[in-house]
Amino acid sequence: MLSGGLDSCVTTAIAAQSHDLALLHFTYAQRTQNRERQAFTEIADFYSLPGDRRLILNADYFAQIGGSALTDLGIPVPEADLTRKEVPITYVPFRNAHLLCLATSWAEVLGARSIFMGVVQEDSSGYPDCTEAFCKAFALAIEAGTRPDTHIDLITPLIHLHKSQIVKTGKDLNAPLHLTWSCYDREDVACGRCDSCILRLRAFEQAGVRDPILYQ
Amino acid sequence: MLSGGLDSCVTTAIAAQSHDLALLHFTYAQRTQNRERQAFTEIADFYSLPGDRRLILNADYFAQIGGSALTDLGIPVPEADLTRKEVPITYVPFRNAHLLCLATSWAEVLGARSIFMGVVQEDSSGYPDCTEAFCKAFALAIEAGTRPDTHIDLITPLIHLHKSQIVKTGKDLNAPLHLTWSCYDREDVACGRCDSCILRLRAFEQAGVRDPILYQ
Repeated sequence: MLSGGLDSCVTTAIAAQSHDLALLHFTYAQRTQNRERQAFTEIADFYSLPGDRRLILNADYFAQIGGSALTDLGIPVPEADLTRKEVPITYVPFRNAHLLCLATSWAEVLGARSIFMGVVQEDSSGYPDCTEAFCKAFALAIEAGTRPDTHIDLITPLIHLHKSQIVKTGKDLNAPLHLTWSCYDREDVACGRCDSCILRLRAFEQAGVRDPILYQ
Repeated sequence: MLSGGLDSCVTTAIAAQSHDLALLHFTYAQRTQNRERQAFTEIADFYSLPGDRRLILNADYFAQIGGSALTDLGIPVPEADLTRKEVPITYVPFRNAHLLCLATSWAEVLGARSIFMGVVQEDSSGYPDCTEAFCKAFALAIEAGTRPDTHIDLITPLIHLHKSQIVKTGKDLNAPLHLTWSCYDREDVACGRCDSCILRLRAFEQAGVRDPILYQ
């Protein structure tokens, strides 16, 4: 599962060490979907994925469901507040479950044996669908809800890493961090002010690595 | 969750006894999607649902994922074979998980406290995502993957009923069975030959109730 952000790019680099890749991207009428799709395509090119091993699925229905600043243009993306305790308004209700469903269906059709997802629990935006408890529950639902001879592992290699460790891991594995996109708000240059930009910038700084993308 | 078939119609009638309704329908480029959408709309009208309490979500991406006779026009719908042991080709990989994700996201936005789904385990087509084990695992994923103050029960009132009991329950509750659509293959009159038609016809016969829809 490759959104095109930092975490999913590093997860792809980890998966590429031990698995043949198939890369899945998901657009859901989110603000920066064109830029994220570009990041996906460039990273898939970097890993020389053939056309039948990359899939972009469109799930615009999130805009119909609403309830998030990422899919409802009437709700502005807030400036970062990493001390906030509640779930932020950028939370797209149950989004990762949808994404995991898409990955599971495609994996079952492909005959794939593992799904890699780059969720991060502690050092992230506080979304409930990024927790280990959620991933473990969903893994049981995959096992129960697919064909008896289908067995798909859900692998979340970053879940307990700090963002700075993710940057270091990506650098060690020569992950194409220069091709990633993290900003929630802009598509030309990163805003540097939303939660996602602030978390990313802090991670690169703590890792002692230069962030190769441009900021406004 | 109202597909417009027999089971979801009876489930709606059960839910209506104790809950204020919001009805969700899901089209996924399946063969009979226009006829199923019509059934949904007519049943929603029957229950006098206002516009903001009915939602039709389109998830055409199933056709891109493929692997099922219901979404791939290159794979014919087989004639019924109720002695078959393996999962049938009409299985849409992990479909009910997708549908539950949509229901969960909308429920979280609405502030709903229950999701009713009309799955039937034993007396049905043998899909893995219609089992109690799957529903229980998914219920845990809902609890873990939504906001801390979101608590949504997944209720499956038909899961251990025989189809004939479902018909009787629907009749007792005055469910609008005449508005339902079950056929996998046709949209004008039901084919009477696919798994879904055969299961339905047998259920009405065993219940001693006349099936009010037309067959070819």
